[in-house]
Amino acid sequence: MVTEQIVNQLKKIMESESRILTEKADLVSYSFDASFGTYFPELVLQPLSAGEVAGIVKLANEYKIPIYPRGAGTSLSGGPLPVHGGIVLDFSQWNQLLIVDPEDTVAIVSPGVITANIDKEAKKHGLMYPPDPSSSHVSTIGGNLAENAGGPRGLKYGVTKDYVLGLEIVTAEGEIIRTGGRTIKNVTGYDLTKLIVGAEGTLGIITEATLQLIPRPQASKTLMVIFADIVDAGRAISSVLTSGIMPSKMEIMDQASIAAVEAYEPVGLPVDVDAIILIELDGHPLAIEDESEKVKQVCLDLGARKVVIAKNDHAAAELWRARKLVSPAIVRTKPTKISEDATIPRSKIPEMFKRLQEIKKKYQVDLVVFGHAGDGNLHPNIITNIQDKEEMKRVEKAVEEIFATAIELGGTLSGEHGIGTMKAPFMEMELGEIGVEMMKRMKTAWDPNNILNPGKIFPVKGQRLVLVND
Amino acid sequence: MVTEQIVNQLKKIMESESRILTEKADLVSYSFDASFGTYFPELVLQPLSAGEVAGIVKLANEYKIPIYPRGAGTSLSGGPLPVHGGIVLDFSQWNQLLIVDPEDTVAIVSPGVITANIDKEAKKHGLMYPPDPSSSHVSTIGGNLAENAGGPRGLKYGVTKDYVLGLEIVTAEGEIIRTGGRTIKNVTGYDLTKLIVGAEGTLGIITEATLQLIPRPQASKTLMVIFADIVDAGRAISSVLTSGIMPSKMEIMDQASIAAVEAYEPVGLPVDVDAIILIELDGHPLAIEDESEKVKQVCLDLGARKVVIAKNDHAAAELWRARKLVSPAIVRTKPTKISEDATIPRSKIPEMFKRLQEIKKKYQVDLVVFGHAGDGNLHPNIITNIQDKEEMKRVEKAVEEIFATAIELGGTLSGEHGIGTMKAPFMEMELGEIGVEMMKRMKTAWDPNNILNPGKIFPVKGQRLVLVND
Repeated sequence: MVTEQIVNQLKKIMESESRILTEKADLVSYSFDASFGTYFPELVLQPLSAGEVAGIVKLANEYKIPIYPRGAGTSLSGGPLPVHGGIVLDFSQWNQLLIVDPEDTVAIVSPGVITANIDKEAKKHGLMYPPDPSSSHVSTIGGNLAENAGGPRGLKYGVTKDYVLGLEIVTAEGEIIRTGGRTIKNVTGYDLTKLIVGAEGTLGIITEATLQLIPRPQASKTLMVIFADIVDAGRAISSVLTSGIMPSKMEIMDQASIAAVEAYEPVGLPVDVDAIILIELDGHPLAIEDESEKVKQVCLDLGARKVVIAKNDHAAAELWRARKLVSPAIVRTKPTKISEDATIPRSKIPEMFKRLQEIKKKYQVDLVVFGHAGDGNLHPNIITNIQDKEEMKRVEKAVEEIFATAIELGGTLSGEHGIGTMKAPFMEMELGEIGVEMMKRMKTAWDPNNILNPGKIFPVKGQRLVLVND
Repeated sequence: MVTEQIVNQLKKIMESESRILTEKADLVSYSFDASFGTYFPELVLQPLSAGEVAGIVKLANEYKIPIYPRGAGTSLSGGPLPVHGGIVLDFSQWNQLLIVDPEDTVAIVSPGVITANIDKEAKKHGLMYPPDPSSSHVSTIGGNLAENAGGPRGLKYGVTKDYVLGLEIVTAEGEIIRTGGRTIKNVTGYDLTKLIVGAEGTLGIITEATLQLIPRPQASKTLMVIFADIVDAGRAISSVLTSGIMPSKMEIMDQASIAAVEAYEPVGLPVDVDAIILIELDGHPLAIEDESEKVKQVCLDLGARKVVIAKNDHAAAELWRARKLVSPAIVRTKPTKISEDATIPRSKIPEMFKRLQEIKKKYQVDLVVFGHAGDGNLHPNIITNIQDKEEMKRVEKAVEEIFATAIELGGTLSGEHGIGTMKAPFMEMELGEIGVEMMKRMKTAWDPNNILNPGKIFPVKGQRLVLVND
């Protein structure tokens, strides 16, 4: 419990009392994220230095108060939810540090920097920060680091973790340490950097990151490929990738997504086909000119009904509009959207589509599928109404079956959204009892009092999927 | 101690007794690697299944016998040396599993597979396994995984770790677990995969790996750039990378390397210049044609004395010959070569070269510098004679100062060779006391009896660099 005495001590740690929030109205804003469930913190702090964070954590560790780090709250898995009360550390105000060093091709950032701003700054130097989660114009890099956020460009460029060279973190005991560094290669001891990134704030709190930047591709080109049959679409995706071409993006929309978009805002998509694949190539202008023709031919050879190559950037943006419209389009009929990210090996895409259709029928739920086809990271979305308790029960069962199916097909519970509260009950299903136990040992070794984001990743006995808490 | 009773139990675990080696003559072969020091194991086992490894480790854990996993023994940091006796697990015979799945673009391998064979197999499907340590035609993937091996292509393609999707490992308690999987994106719990890769066999023993393959670039092009001044060379490297071009390799040879090569086998290199940079571009033929001209111009603008673009693959191979000749050339005068891999931020390359020349003078040692300039991963090599005790004392001091300098310039002890026994004494210098302590906590949590490769990474109190043990 955060007593008055503790608040008084916190006032000495924080350089300004204005960054200590205790009003009920403030606490409400921190009781939810973009996933499910409502949990109130006792207190919110907005730190602006590693020293402040270290002081707070030391105190919290002494009094065993849960600490919940939070960026912009866009998590789809419950990452920042203060499920056991305690203190929320709101990092969104700590956005002052964003330095790009073009010679070392790195960016140094504080945790509250908006993700998209890093790439914007890199661009000024002919560089790129590749990770592009859909929320990148809102989300903070701190949240992206905690969850190891992905995005469409993951296919060619990998995810957040692949661009983190070094971190400054505060341990559960309030010590400030540095992991990794400023060099691309580093094999000095255990790779704490890649362990902390994606650990959802349960092993340490990130207070600074050194990110790798890469040369910015000079041009890009977009293709839209229409497949009457999902099996052909799956084969085409693999064939493109073994033809010596690595697209920067390969996004898929299923029939339900296409129909939803056309009903929402007609853009002229055919509603009688299994799938549309949007492909982006980037790199040297001459290379992508030639590659786009090759990709077209591969797709036509494998049964594509039609291939459209965007003539210029404006036309490309038009093609991508359809993909961007999916999210607003699907919530038009019902207000609640459950966005999953069960991920499967690429070869299992057709099978996964088939199984998802069966789940849709079996539980009578509104299911649309889109996402990152190139790396098997699909986003099955269930559209529902959280007020409809009977339907929500069916939805919970459908979600459970989606997870089980992904694992059965050699895939994983989460490709890019994280485990948080949402998927904790399913951890053993994928990792086995000993697999989870080995992870817990790390947690216990680093955070013996379990104060860092408790209630995430690791299930408590008998924990089940809960979309609505009371 | 490995008693007769334990050997009898091992005979029940191993499916064939012929894979239990106890003869003195056999033990000699396992007493050294490509680094320094000689240590005899009590016993060598050549496991061929995870079941055998699990049985061995369970027994070793019960009797607290050190286990030393070993691939081809090419380690430059002492990774497989059995410094506390015990059992060497020789994985070099377990090379039967090498499956490439072109649809999922993955390879599944057993630990004894020769690294280069993976890329050879991938090539048949238009794919590539990018990591290319210099020893790749001899080294095993198991050793590469344990040490997180790098190589020249690291600049564009990253290192071993960047291509590992999943592992099967045996824990210190003899449990078989799987980490990661077959998908490119996976954020289910802690990233044990990337923690185990590079942990030098101290956290678990790798018995299988799932590796990511990528589309094979269609063509490549090589340039040789000659710089009279090392500062110009450093600036040119950064300028190329901010011009929108990412070469696949950028290797540097200093004046001493060039002179050594010319003395060994004259290939017509100018011996009066500070540095030669070899650049390889790969990708679409049209793209690299254009990019090679751009790179040439950037280098000339920044003071390059001469730029040669290889007209064809044969000419390219000729240019790379000079780089390949460095190693044989420098051991011509003295038999012992100490190959370091201190790595610095790219912008510090000119400063590092200056400091290395000072160290060379101060300790009167034969120092040549070459390596991976694009990512700051230089290889300062000291040429000496291990029999000359007086010189070896100066060499030890010079090596220590190279480490200190790399860290002072914001770099790291090791870019790709690992810590092993060689660099353990310097861990705190880079990571601080708490940094090392946090790593130790992981080790203790996973291997409470300290049986997995003990004596590596973590220094014992007062440990110093030892190049010759008695």
